Amino acid sequence: MSNLLDKINGPQDLHLLSVEELTDLADEIREFITHSVSKTGGHLASNLGVIELTIAMHYVFDFNKDKLLWDVGHQCYAHKILTSRKDKFAQLRKHDGLSGFPNPEESDYDVFSVGHAGTSISTAMGLALGAQHNKTEEKIVSLVGDASIVNGLSFEALNNLGLVKRQMLIVLNDNSMAIDATPGSVAKFLSKIRLSHTYEDLRKTTNNILEKLPLIGKKMEDAIESFKKTLRMAVSPSRLFESLNIPYFGPVDGHDIGSLIELFRAICELQRPAILHVYTKKGKGYSPADDNPSKFHSTGPFELNGDTPDTSKSKKTFTSAFSDTLVKLAQEDKKIIAITAAMTEGTGLNKFKKLFPDRFYDVGIAESIAVDIAAGMAKQGLKPIVCIYSTFLQRSYDQIFQEVALQDLPVVFCIDRSGFVGSDGPTHHGLMDIGFMRMMPNLIIISPADETEIKAALNYALRCGKSVAIRYPKDTIENMLLEPGRSTEPFETGKSVTVRKGSGNIVIAALGSILREAIKAADDLSKQGIDITVINARFAKPVDKKIVSLFDEKKTIITVEDHSIACGFGSAVLELIAKEKKCDDKNWTGRIINLGCPDKFIKADSRKAQLARIGISAEEIVKTVKKIADK
Amino acid sequence: MSNLLDKINGPQDLHLLSVEELTDLADEIREFITHSVSKTGGHLASNLGVIELTIAMHYVFDFNKDKLLWDVGHQCYAHKILTSRKDKFAQLRKHDGLSGFPNPEESDYDVFSVGHAGTSISTAMGLALGAQHNKTEEKIVSLVGDASIVNGLSFEALNNLGLVKRQMLIVLNDNSMAIDATPGSVAKFLSKIRLSHTYEDLRKTTNNILEKLPLIGKKMEDAIESFKKTLRMAVSPSRLFESLNIPYFGPVDGHDIGSLIELFRAICELQRPAILHVYTKKGKGYSPADDNPSKFHSTGPFELNGDTPDTSKSKKTFTSAFSDTLVKLAQEDKKIIAITAAMTEGTGLNKFKKLFPDRFYDVGIAESIAVDIAAGMAKQGLKPIVCIYSTFLQRSYDQIFQEVALQDLPVVFCIDRSGFVGSDGPTHHGLMDIGFMRMMPNLIIISPADETEIKAALNYALRCGKSVAIRYPKDTIENMLLEPGRSTEPFETGKSVTVRKGSGNIVIAALGSILREAIKAADDLSKQGIDITVINARFAKPVDKKIVSLFDEKKTIITVEDHSIACGFGSAVLELIAKEKKCDDKNWTGRIINLGCPDKFIKADSRKAQLARIGISAEEIVKTVKKIADK
Repeated sequence: MSNLLDKINGPQDLHLLSVEELTDLADEIREFITHSVSKTGGHLASNLGVIELTIAMHYVFDFNKDKLLWDVGHQCYAHKILTSRKDKFAQLRKHDGLSGFPNPEESDYDVFSVGHAGTSISTAMGLALGAQHNKTEEKIVSLVGDASIVNGLSFEALNNLGLVKRQMLIVLNDNSMAIDATPGSVAKFLSKIRLSHTYEDLRKTTNNILEKLPLIGKKMEDAIESFKKTLRMAVSPSRLFESLNIPYFGPVDGHDIGSLIELFRAICELQRPAILHVYTKKGKGYSPADDNPSKFHSTGPFELNGDTPDTSKSKKTFTSAFSDTLVKLAQEDKKIIAITAAMTEGTGLNKFKKLFPDRFYDVGIAESIAVDIAAGMAKQGLKPIVCIYSTFLQRSYDQIFQEVALQDLPVVFCIDRSGFVGSDGPTHHGLMDIGFMRMMPNLIIISPADETEIKAALNYALRCGKSVAIRYPKDTIENMLLEPGRSTEPFETGKSVTVRKGSGNIVIAALGSILREAIKAADDLSKQGIDITVINARFAKPVDKKIVSLFDEKKTIITVEDHSIACGFGSAVLELIAKEKKCDDKNWTGRIINLGCPDKFIKADSRKAQLARIGISAEEIVKTVKKIADK
Repeated sequence: MSNLLDKINGPQDLHLLSVEELTDLADEIREFITHSVSKTGGHLASNLGVIELTIAMHYVFDFNKDKLLWDVGHQCYAHKILTSRKDKFAQLRKHDGLSGFPNPEESDYDVFSVGHAGTSISTAMGLALGAQHNKTEEKIVSLVGDASIVNGLSFEALNNLGLVKRQMLIVLNDNSMAIDATPGSVAKFLSKIRLSHTYEDLRKTTNNILEKLPLIGKKMEDAIESFKKTLRMAVSPSRLFESLNIPYFGPVDGHDIGSLIELFRAICELQRPAILHVYTKKGKGYSPADDNPSKFHSTGPFELNGDTPDTSKSKKTFTSAFSDTLVKLAQEDKKIIAITAAMTEGTGLNKFKKLFPDRFYDVGIAESIAVDIAAGMAKQGLKPIVCIYSTFLQRSYDQIFQEVALQDLPVVFCIDRSGFVGSDGPTHHGLMDIGFMRMMPNLIIISPADETEIKAALNYALRCGKSVAIRYPKDTIENMLLEPGRSTEPFETGKSVTVRKGSGNIVIAALGSILREAIKAADDLSKQGIDITVINARFAKPVDKKIVSLFDEKKTIITVEDHSIACGFGSAVLELIAKEKKCDDKNWTGRIINLGCPDKFIKADSRKAQLARIGISAEEIVKTVKKIADK
């Protein structure tokens, strides 16, 4: 194999192949991706589903000048292979390697660096309006999945699409499968149509579109009307799009390259935005992924026989510790409700969902409404727990402010993937949650350091009667503070815990999982004769006043956190000192060093390497302490 | 008059009146509101439009146990009058007076404290799901306007409404008029139907609904199907809602109390969510407001003959200064595009819109897409300026992060209503913009202090090639630094300006419009023999390093800002000191005091009073300085 793929040094080379050869090429790419991802890990199923679509788009459009916008973007591997990045797949999602998402720094074929859902239609709209002003002719194509199109941002774009008076094509890639199956009415009717359509129907629809569309150059509106009439479907997605006045075509077979090429050629002549609805099969061609696309959504390295490495023996994670704790608490307290936004597996809620299906809600990729549902439930006296990754919780910023904080409602936020996330890179790091939440009155922000603390934190959050945000990383968990099974000190509002009392002048105040690095650093330093104090800060808000008293004792305080330095925990410590010592001293006596993420984006890498790069690994903390101690 | 209104001490008293009397009551309330708002200022047109609707809802439902959710909430005056708050209208939107929005602290009849759009369906959904869990029978009603229903948050709720398996009524209050006329496809088809409907049609629809609905208790689904078939409209909004599987009824006359009562009684028996589409007339009954609802959307006191106070003589504001400057710049530079989200008048863009209609975009209440359109345009080499109030920009948080900052695109944000907004209160203050933006790499945040600086700031923002956020308050503007017409020092990245050099040890670093208070304070202090230095900080990010050098000189630095202390400009100064002095000194020598908004919500009041309350008025700054100077 790999004869055809070797010939493709860029999208222009696709024109050297016949349609039959393009189909063979798709198979080669499928094999290449499967092999490559089996070694490096990465997103598999979604990438296998869009290969034919990607080839057809690159065949028809010239994305040197035309623009292709990906939504979420984890399905861009075939696109990267076709645009001269095949050789870099061994370094997929590694330091200085190929990003798992579109990235303009890698290639001019990538327009936006993305990772969040719902942005492709809206940024495409911006590009189209820009082209409208510039009076340029480039074609604009947005590729959006059925899971992303239900996001509020997508809808805002669809509703405003009338502003665009030129070509803009939305390809709705419908594989009826988001990370978890997409809920909601739109998904329901999309899947209803899917079930009622045979392959034969898809062919007929394709022919039907192609028959009508050549007319469009002359009498576009008439042709669209005529096309609408021939849509034979009882329940049509066209109804939704029609009500928004967007011409809709489909559904068609997304694996038939020949037809896709003809369809793209015809539809891209429309001088207004239009939607082409395409059916694809997630995981197509690699049967284990085909059978279990959710398992192969984002995967580590795996065996090509379909086995993924045995995870039962692998280390516990913060996520799994949270999951176990939540299930136990929910067994005792029927008021606990779990809410997520298409992150059931990722946030460890599958166990909860299985045990308490009536107390579990997944609203799809719609983080804003997830928070408002929680607010309403809290008003009704229930105990809603919102489980959303830190980076996606940014979508709920205003809801956390107005519907939760301003009402002083006891909604619990379990913020998974806070801090550095490793290979997903800058779109997915959760480096702003402390900052964006600690400005809001009534909110409490805590970060448990280990497994026993996860339990204590969740217990505290459910009992304190305020809204509590619990942040924890995508990382393994250890019981460094206590043996498993033994209980830890309960969380008490605004109280830190001194985990190591040193004789020296230097104090590390670490927040959350980073405490592990601080303790390791202290152990190492102690062997070198430097005896430091280590504090488990626990609270990013309110910060323990005890830390201010250390400042009075002429100590040097080093704050360490897995968050941006700007607005983070360390920043809160500084503010508290400024506040507490306002009018007392002529000069300040202590000294503070804030360790955390500086003002730049940190690229994909292992989480360990990311921590080291910004200076919060045990080794780097040791270096910083020694520099001070030497003075 | 006022015979009937005097009899109403609570919603239960409505049952003492006949339908004819309820209609008279509506007129009395209309007169009461018009008179009251003419004295105090407030929202007028929207409130005059929903009086009959409010009476009918309170007549049918018992909002002691049933729940009424307002969207945005500025149209709740009749509701407040009916729920025993009539006597407090003289103190509308004043300190310790009646809030202009629903507020649970005032009355149990108010469920959520709101002010932002799109929340009523989503929080109602949370309440309904809560009731579903609790197995309680209260009715849930959400009242949402045609401008709010197009918000992404509303759509996310509509799409997930299938989760609710019990009663929940959405009343779509369609007055075809948001703050500015609502754009977008949904609005377009709503207005199409409106235009094609006579009063007679509305009556027929009402009768039609009432005829079919009594069946519903037994054979709900059949009845709904049967009702759908009888909808005679060519272009029906039911198409949108049907595609989302939500039963739709309407449109009906929103001023016919008798019919509304019957309709509510019938529809609220449905054991699933449903939409009742109601036509109302904004400003109804007060002809000047009727003719010009936009002018009377939110108004100061006015004459009852329809005249509003002559604003041409009133002082210039930051908004008008921005507006004038932008128009001048746009005349010279055709790449400048202005984008807003239903805030054309509020952000001063009406002039721009009139002069450059092709370069102006209003996307309706859809802040997220506004930012993404700007990102796309910036990619196309244009110079997009996004004009959104600070509090509503919270809705675009994730878009600013991913689509602007991560791509390093030169989008300019003109953040009006930053800081305290006065009478609108805590839902509308803009106290978090510095904090939520300064964590993002590539962003620059500036705040001009006066009129000449507005010009300099906008010039800088358009030329620096980075994304720049310009924040300024809802306030009058003065030229304290230079005479009008004269140019000021251009903005230079990260450079502050010393506007007053004092001989003493105390330095005030003020950001933005608050500089005015700082200068006044310095003048006053100087008369009392205390000679302080005043710095116009200009940049919240990056902060001028010069300020750190002052810290070295054993100065006391007082940072002053119209923002939360947490994560604000002062916090950034603290971080910079911690960073710059990391390993140099054993102890710190200077001292800092951060003035700004503490960790609590500040109620409606005049902006002046709000500044004083948190200690950043000239008088309060004087007190703080004297306290230090005395030590």
